[in-house]
Amino acid sequence: MTTTLVLGGARSGKSRYAESLLPNQALYVATAEPGDPEMAERIARHRARRGAGWRTVEAPHDIAGVLVREPGEPALVDCITLWLSNALTGDREADLAGLLAALTFRTADTVLVSNEVGSGLVPGTELGRRFRDAQGDLNRALAAAADRVVLVVAGLPLEIKRQC
Amino acid sequence: MTTTLVLGGARSGKSRYAESLLPNQALYVATAEPGDPEMAERIARHRARRGAGWRTVEAPHDIAGVLVREPGEPALVDCITLWLSNALTGDREADLAGLLAALTFRTADTVLVSNEVGSGLVPGTELGRRFRDAQGDLNRALAAAADRVVLVVAGLPLEIKRQC
Amino acid sequence: MTTTLVLGGARSGKSRYAESLLPNQALYVATAEPGDPEMAERIARHRARRGAGWRTVEAPHDIAGVLVREPGEPALVDCITLWLSNALTGDREADLAGLLAALTFRTADTVLVSNEVGSGLVPGTELGRRFRDAQGDLNRALAAAADRVVLVVAGLPLEIKRQC
Repeated sequence: MTTTLVLGGARSGKSRYAESLLPNQALYVATAEPGDPEMAERIARHRARRGAGWRTVEAPHDIAGVLVREPGEPALVDCITLWLSNALTGDREADLAGLLAALTFRTADTVLVSNEVGSGLVPGTELGRRFRDAQGDLNRALAAAADRVVLVVAGLPLEIKRQC
Repeated sequence: MTTTLVLGGARSGKSRYAESLLPNQALYVATAEPGDPEMAERIARHRARRGAGWRTVEAPHDIAGVLVREPGEPALVDCITLWLSNALTGDREADLAGLLAALTFRTADTVLVSNEVGSGLVPGTELGRRFRDAQGDLNRALAAAADRVVLVVAGLPLEIKRQC
Repeated sequence: MTTTLVLGGARSGKSRYAESLLPNQALYVATAEPGDPEMAERIARHRARRGAGWRTVEAPHDIAGVLVREPGEPALVDCITLWLSNALTGDREADLAGLLAALTFRTADTVLVSNEVGSGLVPGTELGRRFRDAQGDLNRALAAAADRVVLVVAGLPLEIKRQC
């Protein structure tokens, strides 16, 4: 089993590419909370694209728990960025440690989708800078743990790590 | 004949690289409208760099029309991002369909320049998010149609697609 | 001796990667001015990570002078982006010319760290746009002069130039 981290900017096609890595019956670990109309529309669009085969589990916080409870099910976590924003005031180091530990229990493939957010100007607010920094730290930690890392640009995969 | 999509951030050198792909007598399809001093200065700088050989056609909206009227002329469209921002309130799906159809009529090389805008934080305004999403969707559609896609970083080309 | 330019977004791991390219006794040319608590904390974190072997020289403006005074010492300049922001109102063309000239005097390896800032939306302020443009111009000029250019994404190096 392998862990793949799929990185990309907004609307880069990263979710679609990530879905293509798993069989149609995989587990979809959804971290979004449909709090506002924009997000609800985005969730509905992703769900329609995946089709009926996928089994969706809502996990805005406890993705580690979901991944260890069904270690033999191929799983897609979409996305790490929303999970981070849901947990920004919590104990992020413990959350990360839990996720990394969960990955070691998996006997089926895991795909994690995350955003690249650090390539614009320095954000104008302290919260913005803190979020950008936390996302960068998280992406580096997950990239170090992953067997394979792919950057998606305009729907095209660019492999930046492959562990033999 | 081939279609090349050249992607890059602001001041990444994407226009300069795109120009290097075409002969000096090519058609320059300019989508900018010199509405403000900053843009007028940018247009003048690009024009000075290209030199006298290029024939410039101003096409803030109808790039498809220009490309099909001179199908045998090598052409550079600079840039898709301004074309999108000129058309943000129009029928974007029809515009995209028209552009994709126009590309199939071409008998000479076409180079399209577009911006990567999705790698910063989530924009603070709804208009910003809509623009970022529309640009991402457009880049994916054009990348899927292109024979070759190049990401320019600090003036250096990184090929992310080449159709044999 | 070679000049390497290491590019990356915020918290991409670019400083850490840059440090790995040089021996532990190298010169650390620090451009940061610890003006506010966030920056002071960032400086302290980088310093703790590097360990005691490195010799730090503070050079918020005159990195060229430092590099030519010790041409035989391997040196890391961290980072070009802060140097630019310290010099934004000065004569940037002269500063760049001085830095490029200094590089030609070096007899040991030089590593320059700089930020990718042009891949978000167009900044909302004129100052933001000017900074982004200046950073893009600078990165292109340094990439052209460098023997090797590496883009760091989530801690992983992606080589985009290698001069044989």
